[in-house]
Amino acid sequence: MAQEKKLVEAITSMDEDFAQWYTDVVKKADLMEYSSLRGCMIFKPLGYALWENMRNELDRRFKEQGVENVYMPLLIPESLLQKEKDHVEGFAPEVAWITQGGLNELQERICVRPTSETLFCEFYKNDIESWRDLPRLYNQWCSVVRWEKETRPFLRSREFLWQEGHTAHATAEDALEWTIMILNLYGDFLEDFLAIPVIRGQKTDKEKFAGAEATYSVESLMHDGQALQAGTSHYFGDGFAKAFGIQYTDRDNQLKYVHQTSWGVTTRMIGAVIMVHGDDSGLVLPPRLAPTQVMVIPIQQRKEGILDAAAKIKEELSAVARVKVDDSDKSPGWKFSEQEMRGIPIRIEIGPRDLAANQCVAVRRDTREKTIISLDELTTEIPKLLETIQHDMFERAKAHRDSHINDARDYEEFKEIVKTKPGYIRGMWCGDRACEDKIKEETGATSRCIPFEDHDRISETCVCCGKPAEHLVYWGRAY
Amino acid sequence: MAQEKKLVEAITSMDEDFAQWYTDVVKKADLMEYSSLRGCMIFKPLGYALWENMRNELDRRFKEQGVENVYMPLLIPESLLQKEKDHVEGFAPEVAWITQGGLNELQERICVRPTSETLFCEFYKNDIESWRDLPRLYNQWCSVVRWEKETRPFLRSREFLWQEGHTAHATAEDALEWTIMILNLYGDFLEDFLAIPVIRGQKTDKEKFAGAEATYSVESLMHDGQALQAGTSHYFGDGFAKAFGIQYTDRDNQLKYVHQTSWGVTTRMIGAVIMVHGDDSGLVLPPRLAPTQVMVIPIQQRKEGILDAAAKIKEELSAVARVKVDDSDKSPGWKFSEQEMRGIPIRIEIGPRDLAANQCVAVRRDTREKTIISLDELTTEIPKLLETIQHDMFERAKAHRDSHINDARDYEEFKEIVKTKPGYIRGMWCGDRACEDKIKEETGATSRCIPFEDHDRISETCVCCGKPAEHLVYWGRAY
Repeated sequence: MAQEKKLVEAITSMDEDFAQWYTDVVKKADLMEYSSLRGCMIFKPLGYALWENMRNELDRRFKEQGVENVYMPLLIPESLLQKEKDHVEGFAPEVAWITQGGLNELQERICVRPTSETLFCEFYKNDIESWRDLPRLYNQWCSVVRWEKETRPFLRSREFLWQEGHTAHATAEDALEWTIMILNLYGDFLEDFLAIPVIRGQKTDKEKFAGAEATYSVESLMHDGQALQAGTSHYFGDGFAKAFGIQYTDRDNQLKYVHQTSWGVTTRMIGAVIMVHGDDSGLVLPPRLAPTQVMVIPIQQRKEGILDAAAKIKEELSAVARVKVDDSDKSPGWKFSEQEMRGIPIRIEIGPRDLAANQCVAVRRDTREKTIISLDELTTEIPKLLETIQHDMFERAKAHRDSHINDARDYEEFKEIVKTKPGYIRGMWCGDRACEDKIKEETGATSRCIPFEDHDRISETCVCCGKPAEHLVYWGRAY
Repeated sequence: MAQEKKLVEAITSMDEDFAQWYTDVVKKADLMEYSSLRGCMIFKPLGYALWENMRNELDRRFKEQGVENVYMPLLIPESLLQKEKDHVEGFAPEVAWITQGGLNELQERICVRPTSETLFCEFYKNDIESWRDLPRLYNQWCSVVRWEKETRPFLRSREFLWQEGHTAHATAEDALEWTIMILNLYGDFLEDFLAIPVIRGQKTDKEKFAGAEATYSVESLMHDGQALQAGTSHYFGDGFAKAFGIQYTDRDNQLKYVHQTSWGVTTRMIGAVIMVHGDDSGLVLPPRLAPTQVMVIPIQQRKEGILDAAAKIKEELSAVARVKVDDSDKSPGWKFSEQEMRGIPIRIEIGPRDLAANQCVAVRRDTREKTIISLDELTTEIPKLLETIQHDMFERAKAHRDSHINDARDYEEFKEIVKTKPGYIRGMWCGDRACEDKIKEETGATSRCIPFEDHDRISETCVCCGKPAEHLVYWGRAY
């Protein structure tokens, strides 16, 4: 009992201190551990399994679009990183430099990749010769290093896992179409698979990727009302192609520059899942993502037939769900706490009375709702319940998100909302960087994106300077 | 035609120059490309797909044994690497050192992981408390960096991809049993999946891993008669546990040290597949590994119905095999060369006369044997043919290996065999490091392993010094 108390007590309430709640959950749900090197984290089995499931599903969706996986070196010579001016300015201040190889000083510094545009460009320069070679639709799954000062598990760390897609196309139109297609693929993945509603849109110039012509993003809203950029897709035009000399011979026999894109999502999506769906008992995983979807917990397991019944439930359900039995010698209460902390979508309780009645109790992690299910109907009822949970989690997150969008028509209103109402602020913008800078400096809110779908002109003037407005922007404090 | 000639001509014959043949194949089969940083390579789509297929199959086999995947940081502080004396002596000379993070000099050098024993040990020290926590069966898929001087694609490069398993057990027996189980898992994988016969055995002390009590390996023989170590499994006893203080409370309430193992296979297995199965037309892939198992090539594809028939074959076969159609505007001869170069196990030719007779021609990549198959029987015949090819490739590689094992009873005979007969040499050994050193220095051959299954005592004296012999050893020149 002392142990059980410890597990539950150790979680700070999310309303009391959201940041501490987050830290508690990542540790207590056994997702990660800190390493002795500041800013680097260890993915424990559950944390890594979440990434594996995301990876497998995304990889399947990429391959449906014709994407092929490759692997580029971890190491980039300094001279290569410097080939595209904006790019190196954006990344050089935060890379880790290797200066010694084995027992020797290196003649040229080598950086550990912070991203791989330069490597792909160097490769494409020789790999692409004619229009027949286009498009090149390459992706890699790897880790990258960025020497961040402030770090938080999954959200910002000195090394993180991600995929980075890098494509080369014959025309600007093809490249731009691909950029948007991938952004929608990310949005669909987040909504269908992670049950996280997103706003899809374009970043302002201030917030775009170093070296990109345009950056598009999917933006999600955490439970505390702070925004989190969950994925980005960049359109490069022919900027990198010109810096690296990537040309192809077109059908008309003319040498032309390719047009490129890059796009990525990272392990910070794990942070988003925690902060969108979690509660004061820990993690709540959407069923499609959950490594274990059902935990069978026998009650009074020493009584005759109970462990057998639990094993039989597991065996039957294995055909339709990812299921485990907890037949350890811990108490049921302890097992419940663990299953809840680790976010397993359904708990099945089976005890002597249930067994006598040929039934069991299914408890939803998200709502704690209990349903009595006949043992004969498990293989039809549990998959239905998992789908219901997946659906409800998305709808709940969407309702939360929608109820945290407020409109500001002038700067006073904007500042008041930032102070009092967590969430997105919809506000018109003149297009000037100066207004973005001022808003950030004075309120802490940044432009999240210019949304694709929301064309509401809520006023005719910039929410900051009052000059004529160009775009509707979603603003917010962000992770 | 000029182009076709180029593709075929560009391959050096393997009998003429095996090393050049290898280099030609990795490039012409589109497996890899060199990066501008010496010793680092780029995995192109086919090269990476081979690794993905190996990874997926091994990962499935690991998980059947209860292994869980985790992810440890890429970066190791120097002080951590130094905790186990033998280990750091083995690795320090070949690591890449980071000395600058962002714009600052680091206070302590950080190395890019050459292997992760130290990280796992540091983690296990706090993660393991009681006998209930054991065994810990963790694995990670990642890349590692070793500052090698001589490099060759897939076989030895400054960065390579691998998996590294790291387990902690309650007793020495449990750990040793696991070490051997994994070695056999590797052996079975190589034989069943890659069609590469292996010799399973123990490394001599000279050849064992830095910090291990015992190293076991699976050894394979390439077409040119040189050996290649295809995987290793290490037993650490409690050496690392004592260096790192990894203790657990046993059932008897006593604090005890854990016993550990580590084990890994790398992308050099791709090199083994090339050098065991390849021929003068390029790569030959075993069907279970092949990303594309069947390539349908239409003949006179502009004739009515041919492309439709090819598409229909693909559609039907997709249920039972990984199949593609090459309906590009290249000539059939060019397509054949490409399919052969890329090692696709079966080519299906379908032309007007075949179609009229409701049949097609299936050509085996390994033997070039042609079979006429009725279009009505494709979905039963092609899977059978793939299995036959898989089986025959293994048997052929085994016959080649077995015909390249020679016995040496004294040193004169040993030296003569090294000079004249490529392959393994079976020779008795006294157990002295001095003999191993002498053999290596004077003949270039190294001890591959003391085999598990072969207990033939071919003589009573050491093949080098003539003193009483302890073990039968397989010797050979190795990659």
